[in-house]
Amino acid sequence: MRKIRKFSAPEPSMRRLPAYLHVLTRLLRENRLYVSCTFISNELYLDPTQVRKDLALTGIVGKPRVGYSVQELIDKIKAFLGWDVQRDAILVGVGNLGTALLGYQRFRLYGLNIVAAFDKDPRRIGKTIFGVDVLPVEKMPNLALRKKIDIGIITVGEDAAQEVADLMVQGFIKGIWNFAPKALIVPDNVIVENAQLSVSLGVLTSKMKLSETEKDTV
Amino acid sequence: MRKIRKFSAPEPSMRRLPAYLHVLTRLLRENRLYVSCTFISNELYLDPTQVRKDLALTGIVGKPRVGYSVQELIDKIKAFLGWDVQRDAILVGVGNLGTALLGYQRFRLYGLNIVAAFDKDPRRIGKTIFGVDVLPVEKMPNLALRKKIDIGIITVGEDAAQEVADLMVQGFIKGIWNFAPKALIVPDNVIVENAQLSVSLGVLTSKMKLSETEKDTV
Repeated sequence: MRKIRKFSAPEPSMRRLPAYLHVLTRLLRENRLYVSCTFISNELYLDPTQVRKDLALTGIVGKPRVGYSVQELIDKIKAFLGWDVQRDAILVGVGNLGTALLGYQRFRLYGLNIVAAFDKDPRRIGKTIFGVDVLPVEKMPNLALRKKIDIGIITVGEDAAQEVADLMVQGFIKGIWNFAPKALIVPDNVIVENAQLSVSLGVLTSKMKLSETEKDTV
Repeated sequence: MRKIRKFSAPEPSMRRLPAYLHVLTRLLRENRLYVSCTFISNELYLDPTQVRKDLALTGIVGKPRVGYSVQELIDKIKAFLGWDVQRDAILVGVGNLGTALLGYQRFRLYGLNIVAAFDKDPRRIGKTIFGVDVLPVEKMPNLALRKKIDIGIITVGEDAAQEVADLMVQGFIKGIWNFAPKALIVPDNVIVENAQLSVSLGVLTSKMKLSETEKDTV
């Protein structure tokens, strides 16, 4: 049996934190200094107790009757998410999705800095896409090692995904962001986050199906 | 306080089901007829008890000492996810990400059929991208209504997202797949699934941060 890695914070909480940041960033633009748990939970249709627990993970302490400092809460959430430092990343697979990710401006807000892209298709190699050079995939482990790359993004097809993950492991990449529909096998010290579109689509269509057959409860 | 919609199945289970499908589809190609819970859990680094509970949601019954029929399990999971029927969808926002989604071939495997795309940029309107016509966004509600569109995909920026969601509600769209970094406000009968890249990236970087400071537990 393989080891199942456990983390001290629950994943559903991690998944809610970026949404809190969206609300808080808006409040900051509106010059709001303080915010309550109830306000955030109302904005996001969440249970206030849940929001309070999630925010407690970041170590923030609210003031009675005033709430949380908006700026401090933003800083604490960013620190918890690891978005307070810049992490260098490489991307493998410059198809439609890979190209879209290279052009996604918001990644800089999250500390993600894609420094190089890789592909095995000679027609793609040598191009510069959104300012990022596309190199031959076999050069990846060395570059990753040399530039101390933290994160590897996989946007190749299902069949090539494991091979690409193996090269990332060779390059001592610590975290793999996997968009390929494939369960990757990696050593215990490498973290894989699966970002397959099918997962999120499945949640949407499951809920649609359930709501077609069930009644609401509050 | 807003109503919080509850569903009879837990969302983390919904999120795992597509990964089971990936494993099962491979087994089917290898002509395997039966599979055990333990096999699936080993493949995906999951707890077998959790896998058994997830699969029970689909209504499947395993055979003692033989396990589940691979084909039957695929069919039951697809039915649970609502992927056994075709759902027509429209997409609004034909930027990099929108274009990538229009070109994503695998959606057909999940029953998702994007029939039209919309934008407000005159330079994009009138184009055909991966066989899908790009129309002016103001035509969307009528087309959605007329063609009984189930799903609306939002790939516009943060500032336009709520306006687009409002148009989708006008067009009686039942499910919104939202890629914009914005918490949408919609009526209770409309289901929103947020597929922001930031959520999945946040899980990866949180875990990397935690693993830099914590010890493993099994």
